[in-house]
Amino acid sequence: MATTMITKLDEKNLSVAFLGPRGTYSQAAVIEHFGSTCELLECAGIEDVFAAVEEHYADFGVVPVENSTEGAINNTQDCLLHSSLKIIGEKIVSIEHNLLANQEADGSKIDTIASHQQSLAQCRHWLKKHYPKARQIECASNAEAALKAQKDSRIAAVAGLLAATIYDLKIVHASIQDQDHNSTRFLVLARQGTAATGNDKTSVLIHTENKPGALFRILQPFEKFQVSLSKIETRPSKQEAWEYVFFIDFEGHIQDQAIKELFAQLQQCTAEIKVLGSYPAAFN
Amino acid sequence: MATTMITKLDEKNLSVAFLGPRGTYSQAAVIEHFGSTCELLECAGIEDVFAAVEEHYADFGVVPVENSTEGAINNTQDCLLHSSLKIIGEKIVSIEHNLLANQEADGSKIDTIASHQQSLAQCRHWLKKHYPKARQIECASNAEAALKAQKDSRIAAVAGLLAATIYDLKIVHASIQDQDHNSTRFLVLARQGTAATGNDKTSVLIHTENKPGALFRILQPFEKFQVSLSKIETRPSKQEAWEYVFFIDFEGHIQDQAIKELFAQLQQCTAEIKVLGSYPAAFN
Repeated sequence: MATTMITKLDEKNLSVAFLGPRGTYSQAAVIEHFGSTCELLECAGIEDVFAAVEEHYADFGVVPVENSTEGAINNTQDCLLHSSLKIIGEKIVSIEHNLLANQEADGSKIDTIASHQQSLAQCRHWLKKHYPKARQIECASNAEAALKAQKDSRIAAVAGLLAATIYDLKIVHASIQDQDHNSTRFLVLARQGTAATGNDKTSVLIHTENKPGALFRILQPFEKFQVSLSKIETRPSKQEAWEYVFFIDFEGHIQDQAIKELFAQLQQCTAEIKVLGSYPAAFN
Repeated sequence: MATTMITKLDEKNLSVAFLGPRGTYSQAAVIEHFGSTCELLECAGIEDVFAAVEEHYADFGVVPVENSTEGAINNTQDCLLHSSLKIIGEKIVSIEHNLLANQEADGSKIDTIASHQQSLAQCRHWLKKHYPKARQIECASNAEAALKAQKDSRIAAVAGLLAATIYDLKIVHASIQDQDHNSTRFLVLARQGTAATGNDKTSVLIHTENKPGALFRILQPFEKFQVSLSKIETRPSKQEAWEYVFFIDFEGHIQDQAIKELFAQLQQCTAEIKVLGSYPAAFN
């Protein structure tokens, strides 16, 4: 792989690393954010997307961070713990799952359902009702499941329309997800941060002191400066068992005066604070 | 399945539902908590453990809730959202993963590694270093992976020693987890709560008002009454996209006077608060 330079005048040359193979919702997010003319770099895992951008194989990376029904994508959060990359944008993609099978398949003879574990979870009730006896296979991605369905007419895949097109599958049942409003939020990653737009949010990672009331003291400055939190997530610190770090999203850009004052106070009550990025908010 | 009555005088008759098949860490947790003489009811999924206790097929249920490296078990948290069961205990089990293969297997010829997705994640670096080219298969449980290894000498399973014994597998490599102190916390569930012991913790589920500062206002009463939080987790509410509920663990029993006063204040600043249980703390 060769390093691609960012050439702002010719956006067609932008290269974007994403969680492959082709046909996943990650690719749909890339197309929605960058258009269909960018150069795509498929990666086998979320860690590889981070590495591709860190090591200049790609200009940008796109990774899923959260699903509106199933919650956080732990692997992405764990990569953010150690990565030097900055979040420069977010993209929300509506997830519409379909039951896909190859052109020869007979819906009533399907005995195996393949998909990513989160997608199976998002269709749990539908699958239990319509395919109670089918064996479920967890795959690394929806696209890998689509590939399995392509090769074996007893296997159906739970995946999006892009996968149906790419792997030449037919739609046995459309829109099978349990929740109507099911979306996944993706992060856009780059090696450099991005300037304030006036409608931004900031993501930070906070290691607290391991003392009672630590979380309360973190939230006090937000209350004082009336900065609205849009999100808080806990993850294991990975340094000590049963110690946690907090991922916090809030309104505002790190260059805003109010946010600078907030930070000055936060630094006094946290063991460590890492700015993951300030970027235009998809919604607040 | 017949309903088993709780007979306190004869603990051998207690029946315990757990995430099967046999040989999982869940079974190890059951043995550590209830001893080896209780009646075991293997369940295919975490939902089924809840259902078995709710519908009187078993007296108790044991489900994993959190791993010290990989974090919360989302499925268990989502079941707690709607279940009427009470948490009556917690059990922490050290997770020691091993690479297991059948007796005929040759370590150098293994081309596939099977395990539960969380176990694969917990050995991510070790597997990348020692088996970089091996295909990874995600299974519903470590025991299912052990069964695959039993049938095919090119497949190795990542699982605990109990699985090696039950499925007659040999240990190709012992103790392959990335973190030294890797443990999983299990919850013990029953239809009725349990009395205060003086060293208890309480788990609650809180739906906040969807207003700025909601989390801060929840934490204020804890600060006021100096009640120590041991845990806070966010999960999607499942009612509205991008709305969250909080799972909070804190020191004390719901029957303690101080906790009753805390609750009176919490009820004023939350949309809904559900007590999941008060139970003896394994640690604080």
